[in-house]
Order: sequence, then structure tokens, then C-alpha cells
Amino acid sequence: MPTGLFLCRTMGSQYPPSLRILLSALILVYEISFILIFYFFVLYDHQRNLDIYPVFQDVNIMVFFGFAFLLTFLRRYGFSSTGFSLLLAALAVQWAVMVDGFLFHFSNGKVRISLQSILTAVMSIPTVLISAGAVLGKANPIQLILMALIEVTVFAANRWIAMDVLQVENHLSLMYVHLFGAYFGLMLAWWLYHPSLSQKAEKETSKPASHLFAMLGTLFLWIFWPSFNSVLINNEGDKSVAIYNTYFAIASSTVTAFALSVATNKDGKINMTQIQNSTLAGGVAVGFSASSIQHPWIAITLGLLAGTVSVLGSVFLQKPLNTYLKIHDTCRVHSTFGFPSLLGAIAHTILTIADHWGGSNQSHWGYVALMGLGALSLSIILSLVAGFITGSLLICKLWKAPPVAKYFDDQAYWEFPHLAVGY
Amino acid sequence: MPTGLFLCRTMGSQYPPSLRILLSALILVYEISFILIFYFFVLYDHQRNLDIYPVFQDVNIMVFFGFAFLLTFLRRYGFSSTGFSLLLAALAVQWAVMVDGFLFHFSNGKVRISLQSILTAVMSIPTVLISAGAVLGKANPIQLILMALIEVTVFAANRWIAMDVLQVENHLSLMYVHLFGAYFGLMLAWWLYHPSLSQKAEKETSKPASHLFAMLGTLFLWIFWPSFNSVLINNEGDKSVAIYNTYFAIASSTVTAFALSVATNKDGKINMTQIQNSTLAGGVAVGFSASSIQHPWIAITLGLLAGTVSVLGSVFLQKPLNTYLKIHDTCRVHSTFGFPSLLGAIAHTILTIADHWGGSNQSHWGYVALMGLGALSLSIILSLVAGFITGSLLICKLWKAPPVAKYFDDQAYWEFPHLAVGY
Amino acid sequence: MPTGLFLCRTMGSQYPPSLRILLSALILVYEISFILIFYFFVLYDHQRNLDIYPVFQDVNIMVFFGFAFLLTFLRRYGFSSTGFSLLLAALAVQWAVMVDGFLFHFSNGKVRISLQSILTAVMSIPTVLISAGAVLGKANPIQLILMALIEVTVFAANRWIAMDVLQVENHLSLMYVHLFGAYFGLMLAWWLYHPSLSQKAEKETSKPASHLFAMLGTLFLWIFWPSFNSVLINNEGDKSVAIYNTYFAIASSTVTAFALSVATNKDGKINMTQIQNSTLAGGVAVGFSASSIQHPWIAITLGLLAGTVSVLGSVFLQKPLNTYLKIHDTCRVHSTFGFPSLLGAIAHTILTIADHWGGSNQSHWGYVALMGLGALSLSIILSLVAGFITGSLLICKLWKAPPVAKYFDDQAYWEFPHLAVGY
Repeated sequence: MPTGLFLCRTMGSQYPPSLRILLSALILVYEISFILIFYFFVLYDHQRNLDIYPVFQDVNIMVFFGFAFLLTFLRRYGFSSTGFSLLLAALAVQWAVMVDGFLFHFSNGKVRISLQSILTAVMSIPTVLISAGAVLGKANPIQLILMALIEVTVFAANRWIAMDVLQVENHLSLMYVHLFGAYFGLMLAWWLYHPSLSQKAEKETSKPASHLFAMLGTLFLWIFWPSFNSVLINNEGDKSVAIYNTYFAIASSTVTAFALSVATNKDGKINMTQIQNSTLAGGVAVGFSASSIQHPWIAITLGLLAGTVSVLGSVFLQKPLNTYLKIHDTCRVHSTFGFPSLLGAIAHTILTIADHWGGSNQSHWGYVALMGLGALSLSIILSLVAGFITGSLLICKLWKAPPVAKYFDDQAYWEFPHLAVGY
Repeated sequence: MPTGLFLCRTMGSQYPPSLRILLSALILVYEISFILIFYFFVLYDHQRNLDIYPVFQDVNIMVFFGFAFLLTFLRRYGFSSTGFSLLLAALAVQWAVMVDGFLFHFSNGKVRISLQSILTAVMSIPTVLISAGAVLGKANPIQLILMALIEVTVFAANRWIAMDVLQVENHLSLMYVHLFGAYFGLMLAWWLYHPSLSQKAEKETSKPASHLFAMLGTLFLWIFWPSFNSVLINNEGDKSVAIYNTYFAIASSTVTAFALSVATNKDGKINMTQIQNSTLAGGVAVGFSASSIQHPWIAITLGLLAGTVSVLGSVFLQKPLNTYLKIHDTCRVHSTFGFPSLLGAIAHTILTIADHWGGSNQSHWGYVALMGLGALSLSIILSLVAGFITGSLLICKLWKAPPVAKYFDDQAYWEFPHLAVGY
Repeated sequence: MPTGLFLCRTMGSQYPPSLRILLSALILVYEISFILIFYFFVLYDHQRNLDIYPVFQDVNIMVFFGFAFLLTFLRRYGFSSTGFSLLLAALAVQWAVMVDGFLFHFSNGKVRISLQSILTAVMSIPTVLISAGAVLGKANPIQLILMALIEVTVFAANRWIAMDVLQVENHLSLMYVHLFGAYFGLMLAWWLYHPSLSQKAEKETSKPASHLFAMLGTLFLWIFWPSFNSVLINNEGDKSVAIYNTYFAIASSTVTAFALSVATNKDGKINMTQIQNSTLAGGVAVGFSASSIQHPWIAITLGLLAGTVSVLGSVFLQKPLNTYLKIHDTCRVHSTFGFPSLLGAIAHTILTIADHWGGSNQSHWGYVALMGLGALSLSIILSLVAGFITGSLLICKLWKAPPVAKYFDDQAYWEFPHLAVGY
């Protein structure tokens, strides 16, 4: 991080005494503002068809449970992973409903809430949780909340531009969550880097139980990934294909992750962290073209490539990221989400071009390629720029995190009758 | 507990040598009686429409998994929480199907079982699990089974009176589960109190892993709470509103719980136990009016209030409960379930009155208020009275629990070939 | 295991230096072969009706999450249980889709993939995971992969014979998974037995956290068992009955398991391992006759019997299995899956005979009995024979497992900036 670049940059790093008041006040002001905004602008849409509800719940499990537990693999950050993820998700989902509402469901001065609009909001939350994974252990709750509010807003803008200007379909615009969250988060990690992080190795160890908790998150994400990639597709035929493609891609990236984890480990052993992360690469990568790939072998190939870039990324890129770029990516979000989604977006563009090339409207391939690359570039640029600006705000003295701090009271006794401890 | 009040009161407190025979015999007699009763009275209803099945499973996850793991936050009671919860739920659900069947689905001398009737039975089980949370560590399995059988019966009677006399709708009658379970359980905790509980603090500590297990329970309850509040509503439009309201109320109570946990902690830290409990308060409170609240800001406000009373209750009421009322509420069920549902029931009455006041049938508001307060009073009184009587039975010498006992064989080796240990 | 019986038998037992290359190569060759086969033979079936999808996901949770975590009760095998289960399931499901496709969905030179065909493939995977449980800690990943490929193939053949020759219905043919997996696995355990296993007791201990992880697996299996037993039944009326029967049988086996666990434990305590295993016995046993039992009391009785044989089997049979038959059944798959499914298959035959005896087509009872016993015998014989042959292949020098080996790199640090460790 360039020292002295911004005015609000601070040198000190004590635990901010104001954290307690600031955090409580921030949350309560936020929640009360909501009540006011909702009072004036937001209405319910009585819905006749709730067929989508079970799959809506699959997505909720992924977002509120899966991502939270995926980050528990570090023994010292279990509370931060699960606690802050719940706080951020519960807070950001309300914000996302509102921002999405004003951008996409606003008419006659009112925002109308439907199951579909809550679903869309929930599906933008992974951006926040992925970014939180990149800065796990480096940001305090106030910084995380500010991050969440900005990120959700910019991601909604990103979707709006993609849909309105680049004619990206609604369900496709949400597949950029992983990419957006990863690069936004890496930019924050760059700002929040400080040399003492290299001495924090002790805090960043795992133990068997923490790995098993992380496997819980992995498995639920793994199982419900077909739901995530297919839920917003309206046509049942296309939806079924999205389910098949995701299933095969994620199965194929899983076995690939095992093979490469063994091959790249100096003792020929399997690395649990790689398994937790790289098994999901197939689901991330296939998201963009889930409903358009018409042959299972393509989905399997894409999964194989996704597993490969994910494991190789975690082996060969993590160190340069940290040493040369000063980006300390706590939860390896780059190799878990960044790389595979980059691969997926490029593959999607290539497949769409190939599709148009062979089809009747051959002349359009250039246009299609341009739109595809445009949406990808938009997401990368917007996430990096927004991440850069957000990072510069986060290091303001007012709410700057100390390098090492415990935000959870894990001495939480439950003593009787001396109930004083733990509150 | 008033010593000497009841004849069967005992002074001694050794591990009852008869526990082994008594427990096995009790369970087997119970199960065989069931087979006989079902042989004579119970039939299956072949159902054509199983649309409700996925949401039925959401509720099963909450009841059989969520509540069980919610109680695992105490490191020493992990086996009791998960083991006894499974035993009680599996046993009580059969009993509830039968009791509900005789009360609500009895015709021509036969009880007819449908997915709906099993669902209703499953939805009454939280009463038992919440009460078990209040006496966790203070009751032995025999006492818990007796408690379960009595509580399910009285709760079914409570529903029957509410529906028949007070014209409470079916789905609403089940929203009293949290209230009923909490006050019934507190009454039992009062009977089972003994001074040595204050020295048991050592047993009532948490460790990071136990908190993470509890977070598992919390998150699955959190995610599926909209299913619980909406599953029994038949009209799709009302059902969608119940989903929205629960979603917003629980999200709002979650962020409020974080804010107040920080504000009331002397070091400005977040208390995991409060997070596990108070995040759910919004779902509990909004249950009563989930389908009738027509504006999202009301749901968010209710969630905010619920989170507030829940955290403040756990900070300021737990100690007086223990010290002055001699109620040792192991899992804080009062602040998790008791308070928020009290708030919810009162809010429901107020909202219904406000609704009638503004509407065309203005004249009925008094009647509506009476019915609402009647149903609330009924549940409180019945739970307290039934809890009092049940508690007096539980301290009978025949099955009285010793103050400290281990009911699980956690030395469970798996040795080969000397298989003797662990059985 | 008879020493010297097979040529490829080896005396040495060092960690095979080739494991690293062999494993990576095996997986990659496998995955690339798949891409080729799928390129030439496999097509997608665009599906209009995805109503089955939520229950399809229930089954995925059981297979990919439930079985994996069920095996985590041994503290030292947590990584193997969850890691290898994911690898095997992801690998075997692709194979099963293909084998099933060629056997059941092949027409005009093409295999057509539908949600139904993926579902059938997923439902055959428990065979592999159950067998993996029997040899947990005794087999290396290469052996497990070979086992998975052979077992899935033979089980598909088993289904094909049962359906084609013995007129077993499709959904019924899949209920033999538990039986098949258990006996196949026991045969492998016999081959992989070596005396040092008796000194491995230290590795086969549990601790509270590992038991709680196993309870996670148990509970999700428990909750979704009605989905497993009913998902493939097309008639809604029959499907509802299958749900009811499974629900009652598993509830009844659960309470029975508690009663007998207490009764057979010398200290009158509850054994967590027995709870984890024997509570599921009712679901296993009732699978065969889930849609044909018309009275709840029969389902409850069957559950009671299943819980009984399962607990008694684990108490009285585990030792003789190990001592006299030299079968070291690490995860007690015989009492969890073998015995209850044997009971279920026999009960199904008896119930079918009773049904025909009383019905109009009385003359057919002999035929029905023959077909039922035929399908049962087929599964037992095929699983034992295939297990025997597979076991003899697994002990080949090329991929023989050392008696004690660690396949996971659980030192997985996450050090910065010295990223060398853990890869």
C-alpha cells in the first residue's frame, strides 16, 4: 500500500476505543434508515406461484451457510468467518433488495418486492462474502460493513450496465458475482496489507476440526451449485441443461483437484485446503455457459480446466501475489473464485462465437464477441476500481483496524449465578 | 423449589441403579403400545398432491437438526444436546401424530395420517426441544421422555382449545410452540433447581468448536424460518407475504443482535451465544403476524424490537432469574424464545386491532383484541400450570436425576479385537 | 486373507513411491477417457418437468454429505472420510451415469442424460461409500478408485439382471444399494485384513467433536431417508405411503436403538456410535416395502425389529467377525447397513407373499416368493463374488496400501510469505 497517498491514512494502530459506539450506532442508524426508506417506497407483491421457493432456499443455504463455513478452515478465524458472514449477509441482503429494487423494480414511485427480487438480492451477496474472505483477519466489522454496502451498490450498477448497455441476460449478469467479489477483495487486501501479516502465520494454521467445518461449507456449496447456476433461467429445457452442465463440470473439477493436489504436493499428499477450494472451480467456471453448452463433454472439459487453473493458481500464484504485489489473500479467493470465473467468462465468449460461427447468423459473431468481452472487462475494471477506492476509504483513521484484534468474546462463560463474565 | 411439598419428593441423589432397566423398558413399552394403538386406529391417507413435501423437509431440518445443534454451544453437553434431542423428537413425533390424530383427524373410529398431519406433529416438537434446552444438564433421559409425552399432549390440547373456542386459525395455533416450550421449560427448571448448579460453571463453558456446532444449528434454523412460518398457510398470496415478512424480520433482528451484543459487552466485543440466540428472535416474533403484515417496514421494525428484547433479556434478566427466582435456564430459552414470542403475540394483537380499527368492520375490534389476548393468556397459563405439575412429577424418587451424571458412554473405543470396551 | 493365493500378492508394505504419479495419472486418464466417451456417445435430454429437482437435491445431500460425515466418528479418519468420500462420489457418479446409460438409456447409438438418469446414478453411489466405510484406514486412494469403478459396474449389472430377469421394479432395484455395499465391503475388508489392525486401536478412537460431526451425517441421512425411499416412485399415492412408512420406521428404529444401547451397555449408558448407526436401520429396512406396506403399525414394527438387529449385531457380531472371520469392519457397516437391509428384503418377501395369499391372485404366491428371494440371493451372491475378485485385485503389489499411511497433508499451514509448507 502506498504510504501517505491519502489524507485519511493513519500511522497508529491501537484498538480504536470508538469501535464499540461506532459499530452499534452504524448498525442501528442503518436499520432505522431502512425502516424509513421501506415505509415510503417499498411494497409487497402478492405472488401466486411459489414453485421457485425450494430452489430459493438452496441458494440461501449456499449464501448464508456455505460461504460462511467455507472460510472456517483457519482455526483462529472460525468466529470471524461465521459471525461476520452472518452479519454481512443479513445486512447486505436488505441493502441489495433496496438497490436492486430502485434499479430494476421501480415503477410509480414504488419498489415492489417479490420472491424473485429477494432471490436476486441473495445471489449478489457472494460478492461481499468472497471479498470478506480475502481480507479475513485484516478488517474490523465497521470496515466490513462499509465494504458490503459499497460493494453491493457497485455490483448492482455493474449488472445494470451489463443488462442495459451490453444486453447481458439477467441470470448471466449474476454469474459475475465470483469474479467481482474476488477482484474487489484482492484490491482491498492490497490496501490492508502490512508487513506484520507475515508474522501472523501462527494465526493462520488449521486443525482437523477446522478443516472438517470448512468441508461442511464446501459440500453444501458443491451440492447446491446446480441450483445457483439454474435458478434464474425461466425456460425449463434450458434450466435442465444448466443443471446437467453444472453437475458434470463440478464433478470433473473435483476429481481433477484431487489429482493435481497430489501431483503438486512434494510428499504426494492431498492438501485439504486445495480440496475445499478447487473442487468448486467447475461450478464457478461453468456458470456463464451453463444453459448454452449442449454437450456434456464440453462441460466436463471445462470442469477439468477449471480444477487445473485453480490448483495451479494456488500453488504457483499465491506466493508472488503476497511477496511482490503485497496482496495477502487470506482465503485464497483468487484461485478459488477469481481464476475459475475468468476462465469461465472467456470460455463462454469462445463458445458463443463458435456457436454463431457455425449457425445461420454467422455475421454476428464479431458483435457477440465484443459484447461478451465487454461484459467481462466491465466487471473486472469496475471491481478493481471500486475495490481501490473502497480500500482507500477503509484505511481512514476513524475506523482503521488494528493489525491484530479479537472482535469476539470467546471467553463466553455461562456461569451461574455470577453472570457477569461473558457479556 | 419448595422442599417437602410433594410426597414423592426425595432427598437422596445417587445415580438411580434402575435407570438402565427403567429407560429401556419405558421406551420399549411405549413403542409396543404404539404398534397396538396404530393397529386398531390408524390408517394412511393416499395423497395425490405432494407439493408441500420440500417445505415439509425444511421443517424437519429445523426440528431434527437445527434445534439439536443450537444447544451444542456448551462443550460438555454436546452429546446430550444432539443425542437426547434426536431421541425426544423421534419419540414425541409419533406421540404427536397420534394425539393430533385423535383430536383433529378422527372420524368413523379411525385416525387418518397425511403429510399435513405429520407436518403438524413435527411442528409441535419444538415445544419439547425448547423445554429440554431449559433443563439441559439437569434432567435424565427418563425425565425428558415423561416431559415430552406430557408436553406434547398439553400443547395439542392448547391448540384444540385455541382453535375450537377462540377461533384461532390452524397455522396460527402452531406459532405458540416457542412460547409454550419456553415457559413450560422454565417451570421445570425451577423444580429441578438445586444449589450445586452454581458450582457447575465449569461444565457450562464453551469452546470454539462447540460454538461453531451451535452456529450450524443457528444458521439452518435461520435459513428455514420462512418455511416454518409459511408452510401451513394455504393461500399462495398470503404464503408469499409470510415468507417476505419472516425474511425481513429475521434479517433485521440479526443485525440488531450484533449491534446490541457489542453495545452491552463491557469490552465492546461480540458474544457468540447472544448471536446464536438473538438472531432468531425476529423469526419467532413475526410468526404470529407473518401472513397479515402488509408492509415490509413493519416486519423490519418488529425484527429490530425482537432482537433488542432478546439481547437485553439475556443481559439483564438471566441473573435475576437464577438468583431470585431460582430458575437455572441452561440454554437461555427465555431470551431466545420466551421474550420474542411474547413480543410477537402482543404485536399481533395490536396489529389486528389496528387493522380492524381502520377497516369497515370497526365494531369488531374489541372482540378481536379479546380473542388475541385470550389465545396468548391461554398458552401462558397452560404452559406454566402444565410445567408446574410436570415438574412435580419429575422429581419423584423413582426417576429423579442425580445432580451430576453422564448418560453417554463417550469413552466409546472401537478397539479390535478386544471389543469389550464401549458397549 | 489366504497368503500366496494370488500371483500379485506382495509381502512388502512400504509406502508405494509410485502412488503420487499413479494416482494423478489414473484420475486424469479416467477423466479424459470420459470426455472422449461422452463426445461420441452421450447427449442431453431437454427436460420440461423439473418437479423432481428438490427431492433430487435431498438425495444428493444424503450421498455427498450424509454418508461422508457419517464416517467421521473416528478422530483420526476425519480427512479420509470426507475427502475420499467426495473423490469417490464425484468420480463414481460420472461412471455410473455412463454405465447406467449404456445399460438402460441407450438407443440409436446414443445415451441420453436426464435428471432421472443422474438421479439413478447418484442413488447407486452409496454402495461405494458403504464399502469405503468397511475398509476405512485400510485402503489407499488408488485401491478405493478401482473399487469404486468395479463396484458401480457390478451393481449396475445386478440391477439390470434384477429388472430384466426377475421383473424387479426400477425403484426397488436401487433399494439393494445398502446390502450390496455392505457385503462387497466386508469381502474387501477380509482381503485387506492384517494382524497389525488389532494394534491400531489407538487410531480408532473417537472424541466428542468427531462424534458430533458424525451426528451431522446421521441427522441429514435420517431426515432425508423418506426422500431416498420415495423419489423414484411415480404414482403420487404410492409415493406418499412410502414417505409415511419411512418416517415411522426410522422414528421407531431410533427410539429402539436408544433403548437397546442402554440395555446392552454394561454401565447402562448410551453409546454414540450405536446411535449414529442404528437409528438409520429403520430407513434401510423399510426401503424394500416402503410403497407396499399399507398399515403404519407394520412400518413401526419393522423399524423396531431393524433397530434391534442393528444394535444386537454391533454388540454381538462385531467381535466374532474380527476374531474368527478376520474381517475388520472399521465403520460397522454390517450392523448399520448389512443386517437391516437383509431383514428388510426378507420382510418384503414375506409381506408380498402375505399380500398375494389374501388377494385374488392367490395362486401366484409361490412365484412372487421365488422372485423376491431370487433378487435377494442375486444381490448377496454378486456382491460377495465381486467383492472377492475385487479384493484379490486390490492387493496387487502395484498399488497395495501400506498398513499405516497418511494420505492427507494435515500440516497444511498457510504461512506468509514463506508459502512453501503445505503444498
